[in-house]
Formats: sequence, structure tokens, C-alpha cells
Amino acid sequence: MTRVLVTGASGFLGRQALPLLLAHGHEVHALARRRQTAGADGKIVWHEADLLDAGASAELVRAIRPEQLLHLAWGVEPGRFWTSTENVRWVEASLALMRAFVAADGRRAVFAGTCAEYEWTSSAGPADPNAEPREWRMRERATPIVPATLYGACKHATHLVAAKLAAQSGVQLGWGRVFYLYGPHEQQARLVPAIATSLLRAEPTDTSNGRQRRDFMHVADVAAAFVALLESEVDGPVNIATGEAVEVGEVVRMIATNAGGEELLRWGAIARSPSEPDTIVADVSRLRDEVGFVAQIGLADGLRETVEWWRRQLADVPPPGASPR
Amino acid sequence: MTRVLVTGASGFLGRQALPLLLAHGHEVHALARRRQTAGADGKIVWHEADLLDAGASAELVRAIRPEQLLHLAWGVEPGRFWTSTENVRWVEASLALMRAFVAADGRRAVFAGTCAEYEWTSSAGPADPNAEPREWRMRERATPIVPATLYGACKHATHLVAAKLAAQSGVQLGWGRVFYLYGPHEQQARLVPAIATSLLRAEPTDTSNGRQRRDFMHVADVAAAFVALLESEVDGPVNIATGEAVEVGEVVRMIATNAGGEELLRWGAIARSPSEPDTIVADVSRLRDEVGFVAQIGLADGLRETVEWWRRQLADVPPPGASPR
Repeated sequence: MTRVLVTGASGFLGRQALPLLLAHGHEVHALARRRQTAGADGKIVWHEADLLDAGASAELVRAIRPEQLLHLAWGVEPGRFWTSTENVRWVEASLALMRAFVAADGRRAVFAGTCAEYEWTSSAGPADPNAEPREWRMRERATPIVPATLYGACKHATHLVAAKLAAQSGVQLGWGRVFYLYGPHEQQARLVPAIATSLLRAEPTDTSNGRQRRDFMHVADVAAAFVALLESEVDGPVNIATGEAVEVGEVVRMIATNAGGEELLRWGAIARSPSEPDTIVADVSRLRDEVGFVAQIGLADGLRETVEWWRRQLADVPPPGASPR
Repeated sequence: MTRVLVTGASGFLGRQALPLLLAHGHEVHALARRRQTAGADGKIVWHEADLLDAGASAELVRAIRPEQLLHLAWGVEPGRFWTSTENVRWVEASLALMRAFVAADGRRAVFAGTCAEYEWTSSAGPADPNAEPREWRMRERATPIVPATLYGACKHATHLVAAKLAAQSGVQLGWGRVFYLYGPHEQQARLVPAIATSLLRAEPTDTSNGRQRRDFMHVADVAAAFVALLESEVDGPVNIATGEAVEVGEVVRMIATNAGGEELLRWGAIARSPSEPDTIVADVSRLRDEVGFVAQIGLADGLRETVEWWRRQLADVPPPGASPR
């Protein structure tokens, strides 16, 4: 039994990790601004605190003295998070948390990183047409780390500092780079929920041309991969992904198959940013061979379950534009 | 007249920058934990605050609303600073300061970086003897950024985040990478003061074999280079150095020439770490051609003046081991 502190424990990803950690017999301390109320979580020790208040989180870590830390919290407001100044505050908060964890004799930490740490232009092919084409799968220690966004830069800077601090302190640090995830409880403004809820409401639904290819993983698989990474002794960056590149248009069509209303889709109504690469897909050999994890949930099954989850939610939530209850 | 906020204003480097900024007609706000009491600084507006208290520094920036920020403060306790956890706190403090500066509509910031951001092994030659020898002068956008130490990693992480935040906010950020500096008011445990004071006391003086080559610049030149960088519009990293590699043994001999006691030197008594590269020297073309700055103080003159400064100090300070007054 290991004493594990999980941050972002009420979030999209964190809430999936908690039951797995409990099932594996760990003493689970869950940190969130507001605790998740649903679910059979009687054995989870909840702590309510704002990680952006470095003093409060340091005090909590001193009191809990976790042996392991699974740091999933980060501000990811849809649309805004690529450039939000909040990212800088999350660097500060994450480093203060890591300092407190090291000072409290923590043994192993796993942080959530992102595919946005990698150079994205590399997947669009080399600028020099005579250059050798680069491997376009993003690989942990081969693809250049050149984040295009403040979000990616902030995650990478956190890794750089946390990894050096860990190494010189005898603490292990695993760094799970998340690609594209979907599933129940996702923020409604993001791709899958936005398409699913719009089609379920039988509304005209704008989408891009859908030709870009992305590596999608169900959030339950992402959480299981993080738990496997935490329970391993693997150090450094590990891509958390399936290794399969799927066209976003294919994802949208699969949502429509389950939600109905394919004829409501307005393909191309949303312009793609020229800075968005055509393909973002992971090399998953570290996850498979070193961590020993392979995704279990296929995209068709995962999207069917997700659309049904949203169908149930829509019975309970007011339509857009209605005033909050 | 520009309203400039200088951090680390009482420090080794900051105290040299203040009179230059005043002489150039700026409104100078000096931030330090404790203000520098000596010197004719009647026109300087002093602010006493601890930058490691992010709330206090943000409040100060909101009140001052500086147009320019010269951020020189960082914890650099001799011997300890390469690996001290304090470095992580300085990342947090520096990023909080940068956020506050951007939020207060600041226009241009210049931060102190370090040659320890660069890959140091590159100057020792390639590991593969058949590989092409690399350029061993450290160049801003060519030498790989692979910091070997927590200090270097923390400076680099700060740059990465501050530069992205600046770019998306329409703020200019110059990043002065400091190499080796010396001069009056240096911390006494560092190379030049340690050798100078020991020889001035006519004590046996341990030194390394002195064969490593370093790029030494007088602190008054370093300060003038930072002021020139601040007054320029140059964005991104700029090496602050002379471009001249001098053997450390040569520096030690020049100190002995002024302090006397060359026969007291015990060459080789201090072992060099195998991780220390043979040569650390800057390419200074950006500083010379883009900022328009060239060092004014030769090493022989600078060291003579520094030894004389220490000679005057030793008349006033108790010998080592004496209890503080």
C-alpha cells in the first residue's frame, strides 16, 4: 500500500484515476478545489485546496507526506488555454508542489505533460524540400522539443526544472505526454462533446474539413496508463497515446453514427489554423515496452459510450442560452 | 525618460547598473531585500521587498507601473547555487514578476541568463572521435541548450516561458547570458575575491591547476552591457561577455602580481570536477553588432583595481573565523 496524492482529482482525467488507484490497494489522497461528490469514493481522503495558492499546497503536502504524487491538475479552459497567462501560474504552482513533495521525502512523481511540447511543424514535413523527410511520429527522445504555444512552453519548462530537481534529489519522475483524449465528463466546449451535444439537440453543427489526423485515446485508458506509469519505475517522458492516427472527420462521422443527424454537419464551416499540423500521432513504444500498457478501448466503442453518456446528460441540463439554475 | 525597475539592485551587478541608468536620464526604481546605503543615489527610488514573496512583488509592480524591467535578482550563494532548491523558487518568483510586468503594460524587459544554459560538453569536443569538431564558442542560436545543472535548467525554463509570454503580449524581452564576471563587491567565496583576499593576508592559497579557460568580464562592463541591451530593441538571447578565453591560472597570476605572494599559491590543490569543460567562451557578435557594445575594461586593469578594492576592504573587515561584530 502506497500513499498517493492525486491533484486535479475532480477533473476529467483525475476522476478516472481514483478508482483504479483504490482498486490497486493504495491509500488515495485526492486534491481538488472542490471535491467530486458523485461515485462510491468512501475510502478516498479528499482535500480541498487551490494549488495556485502555493502556501496552501505546500502545507498540505507536509501534512500528508505522500510517497507518490500524480500531478494532473492544470488550467485547460477550452479555446483559451493555448495562450492563457494562467499557464504561467500553473508552472509556478507545479514547481512549488514539486519542491514540497521533494522536501517531504516523496519517492516517485508522475506529471501530466503534453504532445504540445514537441515541435509540431516537423509532422508537416521539412521546410527544405531537398531535406530528408523526418519521422513524423512524435518520439520521446528524438522529436525536437520546440513548443509553439505558451501552454506547450509552460509544460516543457515545468518538466525541465522538475526533472533536474528530481534527479539531484533521488526522486523518480515520470512525465506522461498526453495527446488527444475524449470520454465522459469532458468540458462541453471541446471537440467530441461539442459535436455530440449539438447533434443530439438536432442542431446544425459546424466542423472543420476534418482532414487533420490525431491520436485519440479514451480518458479511461489515459487514466489507466498514468496509473501504470506511476506504478512502474520508468523515468522521463512517456507518450500516453494509442499510436493510431485517425482523421478528425472520421471521429465526427462516428459521433454522428451514434447521435444521429449526419446531414446536420456543415463540413468546412470552421477554418483550420495554418499553424495546426496535419498529423499529430505518438510513437508508443515506451508506453508499450517499458510501462507495459496498451489501450483497451477502441474508438468506435469509446465514442458510442461517450455519446450515450451525453444523451443522458442532456436530459438533465438546460439548453444553451438558458439561465443557470 | 523611461521608468525602469531594477531587481537585485543592491547586488554585485545591480549596484553597477543604477548610476548608468541615472546618468542616461531614466527614472530608476531599485528593488532589493535591503537597500544599498552607500553612494550618491539620492535620485533613485528604493523599494524594499522580497521577490520570493510573489504577492509583494506583484503589488509593487502594479504601483510602479514600470515601462522597462531589468531583472537581475537571483539566488547565487557561492558553491551551493549550482544545485540549490532556491533556484526553483527563483523560477517561480521571476515568472510571477514577468506576469505582473506584462499585466501592468510593461514594454521591454531584460533578464539575466547564464552561460550554464548552453551544453557544456560541446566545448570539450565531441564524444565520437570521428565526428566533425563542433564550434566551441557558445553562440546564442546555434549552441544546443542542454543545461547540466539545476541552476542552468532554471534559468533556461524561465527564459522559455517569459519569452513566449512576452511574444504573445507584444512585450520585448532581451535575455543577457552572463559568463564569468569579477570586480568589487563580489561575494568573497568566489574565485577572484578568494584568491585576492587570501594572498593579501599572506596566507597559503589553494588553487586548481588553472588550465581551464573562461571568458571573464569586469562587472562594470557587464552592467553597461545590460543597460545597452535594455536601451536597444534586441529581442532574445545575447551573450554578455568579452569573447576572450583566458586561462584561470593566468587570472590567478595576475591577481598575485597585484596582491603579492605568488609563492603562496598551491597549484593543483583544488581538484577540477570532470564535468567542468576546458573552455567556456562566448561568441559576442550579437552583443557587438546588434547591441553595439564592446567591453571597455581590460583584464589587467580590472584585476588591479579589484585587488586594490579588496586591499581597502581588508583594512575594515575582521579576519576569517572572527566572530561577527
